[in-house]
Amino acid sequence: MSTSSAPANLMDALVSLCKRRGFIFPSSDIYGGLNGFFDYGPLGVELKNNIKAAWWRDFVQRRDDMVGLDSSIIHHPTTWKASGHVDNFTDPLVDCKVSKQRYRADQLFWAAVNVETDEPFSITLTGLQSNHLGPDKYITLIGYVSALESERTNEELLEKAETLKRKKGIRGKLHPLVPNDFTYANTENIPFIPSPALGGINGIDKVDQLMPPRSFNMMFETYVGALRDDSAVAYLRPETAQGIFINFKNVLDTGRVKVPFGIAQIGKAFRNEINPRNFTFRSREFEQMEIEYFIAPDADWQKCHREWIDAGLAWLESIGLPRALLSEYAHPKEKLSHYSKGTVDIMFKFPFGVQELWGFAARGDFDLTQHQQFSGKSMEYFDEAAKKKYVPHVVEPSVGVDRILLAALCAGYAEDEAPDEKGKPEKRVVLRLSPRLAPVKVAVLPLVKNKPELVAVAEQLHAKLQRKHVVFYDQSGAIGRRYRRQDEIGTPWCVTIDFDTLANGTFTLRERDSMKQERIDEKTLFALLDEKLD
Amino acid sequence: MSTSSAPANLMDALVSLCKRRGFIFPSSDIYGGLNGFFDYGPLGVELKNNIKAAWWRDFVQRRDDMVGLDSSIIHHPTTWKASGHVDNFTDPLVDCKVSKQRYRADQLFWAAVNVETDEPFSITLTGLQSNHLGPDKYITLIGYVSALESERTNEELLEKAETLKRKKGIRGKLHPLVPNDFTYANTENIPFIPSPALGGINGIDKVDQLMPPRSFNMMFETYVGALRDDSAVAYLRPETAQGIFINFKNVLDTGRVKVPFGIAQIGKAFRNEINPRNFTFRSREFEQMEIEYFIAPDADWQKCHREWIDAGLAWLESIGLPRALLSEYAHPKEKLSHYSKGTVDIMFKFPFGVQELWGFAARGDFDLTQHQQFSGKSMEYFDEAAKKKYVPHVVEPSVGVDRILLAALCAGYAEDEAPDEKGKPEKRVVLRLSPRLAPVKVAVLPLVKNKPELVAVAEQLHAKLQRKHVVFYDQSGAIGRRYRRQDEIGTPWCVTIDFDTLANGTFTLRERDSMKQERIDEKTLFALLDEKLD
Repeated sequence: MSTSSAPANLMDALVSLCKRRGFIFPSSDIYGGLNGFFDYGPLGVELKNNIKAAWWRDFVQRRDDMVGLDSSIIHHPTTWKASGHVDNFTDPLVDCKVSKQRYRADQLFWAAVNVETDEPFSITLTGLQSNHLGPDKYITLIGYVSALESERTNEELLEKAETLKRKKGIRGKLHPLVPNDFTYANTENIPFIPSPALGGINGIDKVDQLMPPRSFNMMFETYVGALRDDSAVAYLRPETAQGIFINFKNVLDTGRVKVPFGIAQIGKAFRNEINPRNFTFRSREFEQMEIEYFIAPDADWQKCHREWIDAGLAWLESIGLPRALLSEYAHPKEKLSHYSKGTVDIMFKFPFGVQELWGFAARGDFDLTQHQQFSGKSMEYFDEAAKKKYVPHVVEPSVGVDRILLAALCAGYAEDEAPDEKGKPEKRVVLRLSPRLAPVKVAVLPLVKNKPELVAVAEQLHAKLQRKHVVFYDQSGAIGRRYRRQDEIGTPWCVTIDFDTLANGTFTLRERDSMKQERIDEKTLFALLDEKLD
Repeated sequence: MSTSSAPANLMDALVSLCKRRGFIFPSSDIYGGLNGFFDYGPLGVELKNNIKAAWWRDFVQRRDDMVGLDSSIIHHPTTWKASGHVDNFTDPLVDCKVSKQRYRADQLFWAAVNVETDEPFSITLTGLQSNHLGPDKYITLIGYVSALESERTNEELLEKAETLKRKKGIRGKLHPLVPNDFTYANTENIPFIPSPALGGINGIDKVDQLMPPRSFNMMFETYVGALRDDSAVAYLRPETAQGIFINFKNVLDTGRVKVPFGIAQIGKAFRNEINPRNFTFRSREFEQMEIEYFIAPDADWQKCHREWIDAGLAWLESIGLPRALLSEYAHPKEKLSHYSKGTVDIMFKFPFGVQELWGFAARGDFDLTQHQQFSGKSMEYFDEAAKKKYVPHVVEPSVGVDRILLAALCAGYAEDEAPDEKGKPEKRVVLRLSPRLAPVKVAVLPLVKNKPELVAVAEQLHAKLQRKHVVFYDQSGAIGRRYRRQDEIGTPWCVTIDFDTLANGTFTLRERDSMKQERIDEKTLFALLDEKLD
C-alpha cells in the first residue's frame, strides 16, 4: 500500500474539494453567501443521509429500548421559558463602536503591556507611571493590545506589544503578557482596550472603542400568526432535545415503552452565532441527532452514562473515524449547571484543533421537572416493576450531523501516489470514507465506450445495481482517470467491464484504499455489498 | 375477505388513532398546542421516513438523470426578492375589529339578504327601502350574513338569512342568496357585513366590524446576526424550490449533469398561514419533496410535463393510494402567472374534500432568469450536443410529505370485522398501508410467553429480522388481540411462533388485509420481505 498523508492546509484542500465535487457549497453562493449557512450538493446530501440513516438504524431501529420522534422546529414558546433558553441561552457580545464589528467576549483576547527597566521613566516627559519593583527594577504600563481567538492569539498579542514598544521608542524588556478574554475586562480597563478591528494596539489613552459585554440571546425569533407583538413571538429551536421532553407523556401513552428507554430525534436546529467559523463546524443552521435516555431516579446513572459514551465511541469507529483522533473530555464540576450530574464530550482532532463532537450529559430530572412545573401536567411515570411513581432522570447523548460529516471528511482525506496509465507515479486525492457513508457505493466502468456489446453488459449491471444502491456509470476517459475521479469522492469500489466479462461473466473489482484488483462475478459483488453495507 | 368501510367521521377517527398510537401529536401538546404545528411520534416518524426514502430512492437514486440537494432553510434574503415572494407571496387578510379574529378574505363568505313581497314595506315604519321589480313584486334588502368557508357555507348563510328574517318579523320569501367571498366586498358594503366571530347576522345598520382586506406576507421573518434592522432580515423558506435554482450553477459545475436533468430536494418549509386547518393538510411547518427538471428551451415541454404527471400518478399508486381517489386538475389559463406555461395538480379525495396533493408546474425560464438578473451571475448552460448556450426551462413537480402521509392514512384506514378468539365477529380497525410505507414491517409473536424454549426461538428470529427491518416483538395478551394491535398500526405481516416451530422450523405468517395464514420458514420470510419492500 502506498504511503499517504493529509496536506498541511487540509481545511483549504477540503473546502475546495467539497465545492468542486458537490459535497458542500456556501449557502446562497450566487448572492455572495450568507455567513454561517451551507448547502449540501449532490454528493453531500447522500453522505449526510447515509450518516443519519446509519445512526437511526443502529440507535433506534436495531434496539428494543429506543423509539424515534420528529417534532416541529417551532414549538410553543413556553417550552423555551421552561428549558431556561429564554433567560440563559446567551453569549456575551462586545460591540466595537467605531467599526460596528461584533465579537464574542470569550473570543476576544487582550493584555496590558508592561516593560521592565532599570530606572523609572520620567512621568513629565513620557506621561508613563513607573512602579518600583525592587533594586534597579521598575515596571511601567505602556498600553494595551487585543487580538481575536485563533491558534496563534498569544503570538499575535506579543507581536503587537513589541510593535507598541517600538512605535513609542521605549527601550526595556517586555514584562510577560497575561492574556485574558474580554469577559475578564472591567469598567476600569475597557476604555483603554483597543478594538481588533482598528489594529488592536493602544497606548495609555482612553480610546473608548469597545462596549462592555452584553448578553445576546442566540435563539432566532419570529412571529407566528398575523400579530407582531409579544404574544406572537416564537423561536426556531436551538436544539432538538426539548422537543423530546415535551413529548415524553405522549410517547408514554402510546404504550410501547418502559423505563429505561430512550427517545431519539434527528432534525434541524438554529443558533444565531455571533461568530460562525471553521467551515460547517460552527454554523447557524445545523442538524442534530439527540437522544434522551430515561432511567429510574435510583438507577446507576454513571453506568448508563458510561455505556452511552462507549456506544458513541464504538459507533464513530464503525463509521470510519480512527480511535486515535477521538478523545474524551470531562467537564469540570465547577463549570456544570446546578442540576447536571456530569458531562463528558467525545472530542475529535479537527485540523483547527481538538473540538467537541458528541456530548453526553447526565441531566437528572431537571428538564421534565421544569416542563411539569410550567405546563401543570404531570411528567410522572408509573414503574410497574417497582410499584412506584417517579419523574425519570435522563442521560442525553447529543451529536451534530454536520460535525460527524466534517470529521469523516477530515479523517478520510488523504493524498498519496498511484501509478498512471504508463505506470508513472502520480498524485492521488482519496477520500477514505467507510462504505456505509460513501455517497456512491460502486462505479461501473466499461473499459472502452466504443464496443456496444461491452457497453451493453456494463449498462445492464449498472441498472441491476442501481435498483438497490447508489451507483455511478462512467465511460469517458482513460480508466486510470476514472478511478481517480471515484477515489476523490470516496467510492469504495470500481467495477470494470472488459472483454473477459463477455467471455466468462467476471469483471475487475478495484478497491479504493489498497487499489488492489481482483476478478469476481456478479453474485460475489452483491454479497460483498450486502456484507459491507450492513 | 371481510367487507370493510371507512367510518362517517373518518377524520375524527384518524386524528384519534394518530394520537393514541403515536403517529401524530399536536405540537407542544402539554402547552395547549400551537396552531398549525405537529409532531410525529414513534410510528409517525418511521412512516414519514419511509415516504421520503421511497421517493428519494425512486426519483433520485434509481434514475440517471437526477441528482439530490439539501440547501439551508434560511437563504440570503435576495433569493426571495428575485423569486417574487417578498412582493407577492401574500394572502388577503381581514381583521375583525371587535373580536380581534383574523380571516383569510377568500375563506370568509357573505351575502346580502333580500326578501320578495307583493307590496312595498313602509320605509317610515321599517326603515327598509323596497324596490319595485314588476307587477305586485317588490324586493327589499333586510341585511347581511357571513360565514366561514366549510362544506356547508351556503346552507349556513341561508340559515342565518332565515334567522334574520324571523328576528325582524319580516314575512315574504327570501330572494336567492348570492354568496361571495370577502375579496369581492367593497367600501360600500364592508361596513354592513357582520363578522362571523360575532354571529354573522346584521340588519341594514352600519356595524363596522370588519376591516378591508390587506395583503399579508406568509413568509416567517427573522433576523440573522446581532443587528435588528432591515439589513438583517431573513426568511424561513416558504418552499424548497428556490434552494434548487440558486444552486443550479454549483450543481452544473460538479460536472455530473447534462440537460435534460433534474435536481431533487426534500426539506422543511414554513408558511405563516392565517388559517391552518384540516389536521396536517394545511399547516405552518411542513416538509416538501420538490424537483426542478431542466430542459432545453426548444424541447417538447408538454411531453416532459405529461411524463412527470404520469410518473407521479404511478408512484402514488405504487405506495398504495388507489387510482379511484386520485384525479387531475388543470389550472385554467387565466389563473396562471404570466410566465407559467401550464400547471396540473394531482388531486386526492380527502375526507374533507378533493384537494391538491402534487403540483406539476411548467415554469419556463422564469426562476433562473430572475436569479440571473438579481445576482448578476450567468445561469446559462452550454449544450455540447446542440453547440449552443441557453437558460434552461423547467418542469417542477412539487409535493408535500405530510400530505402524502395524510392521504396514505385516509386511504388506508378501514373498519371491518374479524373473528375473535372464540370465532365471534368483532370490530377491527385496520390501516392498509403499503408494505414499503408501513412503520413496522413484521411483528414477532410467541404463541405463549411462559414457554422459555418458544420465547427463545421467537427472540432469535426477532433479533435476526431487526438487523434489517423495523420489527416489533409482542408477547403479552391473546394472539387475536396482538393481531388487532398490529392491524391498527398497519403492520403487513405477523409471525407467530408455536410448538410446531420447535418441531420443524416453520411458523405462521398472517397477512394483515386478507387475514390469511400460512406456514412458512425463515428463508421464505426474508425472501418475501426483500421482494415486497423493494
